[in-house]
Amino acid sequence: MENYKPFLVILSSAVVVGIISIIFVLRWVFYYQGGLAWDGGLAEFNWHPVLNICGFIVLQGLAIIVYRLPWSWKCSKFTMKFIHASLNLVAFVFAVVATVAVFDFHNTDKIPNMYSLHSWVGLTAVILYSLQLVLGVTLYLMPFTPVSWRTAFMPIHVYSGLLLFASVIAVALMGITEKLIFSLNNPKYKNLPPEAIFVNILGLLLVVFGVLIVWIATRQSWKRPTDQTLHSLHSDGGGEDGTNVGPALSQLSDAAEGETFGEFRRRSNKFDDQVN
Amino acid sequence: MENYKPFLVILSSAVVVGIISIIFVLRWVFYYQGGLAWDGGLAEFNWHPVLNICGFIVLQGLAIIVYRLPWSWKCSKFTMKFIHASLNLVAFVFAVVATVAVFDFHNTDKIPNMYSLHSWVGLTAVILYSLQLVLGVTLYLMPFTPVSWRTAFMPIHVYSGLLLFASVIAVALMGITEKLIFSLNNPKYKNLPPEAIFVNILGLLLVVFGVLIVWIATRQSWKRPTDQTLHSLHSDGGGEDGTNVGPALSQLSDAAEGETFGEFRRRSNKFDDQVN
Repeated sequence: MENYKPFLVILSSAVVVGIISIIFVLRWVFYYQGGLAWDGGLAEFNWHPVLNICGFIVLQGLAIIVYRLPWSWKCSKFTMKFIHASLNLVAFVFAVVATVAVFDFHNTDKIPNMYSLHSWVGLTAVILYSLQLVLGVTLYLMPFTPVSWRTAFMPIHVYSGLLLFASVIAVALMGITEKLIFSLNNPKYKNLPPEAIFVNILGLLLVVFGVLIVWIATRQSWKRPTDQTLHSLHSDGGGEDGTNVGPALSQLSDAAEGETFGEFRRRSNKFDDQVN
Repeated sequence: MENYKPFLVILSSAVVVGIISIIFVLRWVFYYQGGLAWDGGLAEFNWHPVLNICGFIVLQGLAIIVYRLPWSWKCSKFTMKFIHASLNLVAFVFAVVATVAVFDFHNTDKIPNMYSLHSWVGLTAVILYSLQLVLGVTLYLMPFTPVSWRTAFMPIHVYSGLLLFASVIAVALMGITEKLIFSLNNPKYKNLPPEAIFVNILGLLLVVFGVLIVWIATRQSWKRPTDQTLHSLHSDGGGEDGTNVGPALSQLSDAAEGETFGEFRRRSNKFDDQVN
């Protein structure tokens, strides 16, 4: 891998910032907000930020960059796609439970649902994320999908993935804003009590996490090498792709990754902007 | 240009959504919030959303994609860089006046400054945007800057630009959330009066604008062709780049854009991920 050292530094930073964000949200709900429960009260609401930050942000972020980890390059492309899809599926489950928690809390406390911009963009993100998952699995894990469809949809799949990830962070920032305004009363948010500073820092951490993940995901030089290159590097000829995945996926690898740069310009229209 | 029709559709959509967003913010402040003034009151605050949406979002968005307009390809690269920098400078001035307006309003009304996550991320974005402007002009418009520096910084310049643009939209969504919670009292935000629906839609429009702009900015096939390609297309040999800009900028064009795809792979480490 080119620029291995910068990659390690940025990857480690992303992981550390992700873990610190999780610690921050846990400390927020346990120290300041009364902990977690499933009782229709504030402690049930608390599952909302915890699950969204752990799953919909940190786990989704790691799912996005899983192809970039050089230690994973010995695994077949199919295995990595399966891991990518599985991590996203777990993140989706977290997001759904987080959404149920807040609806349940609102309904118990007779607070209207779906009035805020946070809820509009947030629910749209959850719905589009489910669509992204279903389309992603159908297009890239099902052996019957034509290679031409896979190729045509790849730029959209990649762009939607990064867009959803960025949107979820924006939704979290709106959620933090709402929650601090509503929950801080004496002293108020505008008086900047310790909880406000603490949770504002959590918001900044989420932004930094997003910046690092999208940087890793958009560096062409950190892209997983083509299977052809990997085969020639590990001259054991193990046929790590293709045997498990059927001809269609091998063809996709050939079509989307195995081409020469001479071919690239001609075909850039179809294949450009693939980051995975 | 490849895919000219989809380009036109997406560009037109972005322009229309940008214009509608400006109409929405103007209607918000004039119809619901008492109009504009510079008196330390709410009408002065109203400059904050108006200037940020017109300048820091819509104008910055157009500045980002100005290289992609095929009608601009007959202009020299230097001219386009100058236009890109000038639009960003105007956007920056709008952002600064918008920031002054909110500080002035807060100080007059004895409301604390800089307590919210919106203000933390927002002021950081304004400061980083000024840094981006100064570095951008120094690196890419000053003839004395070494080409190697220009090349090395280009991926960071491009990434920071898109990141700042996305961040400013996220900041706007937080700002809308804050403003609707604070300003709607009878009925409240949670009762979703017409103003709340109207401004929530404004928030969605900003997200859609961002999605379209970043899509245009990240399609490799819509990139401005190299000056070499443009010269061979317009066989007048007019030397449209270089004459005004000194050897260094011509070299940058040669180095960053004129290379063959054979060279590209070797040098991808340095030049990848350039979108302009």
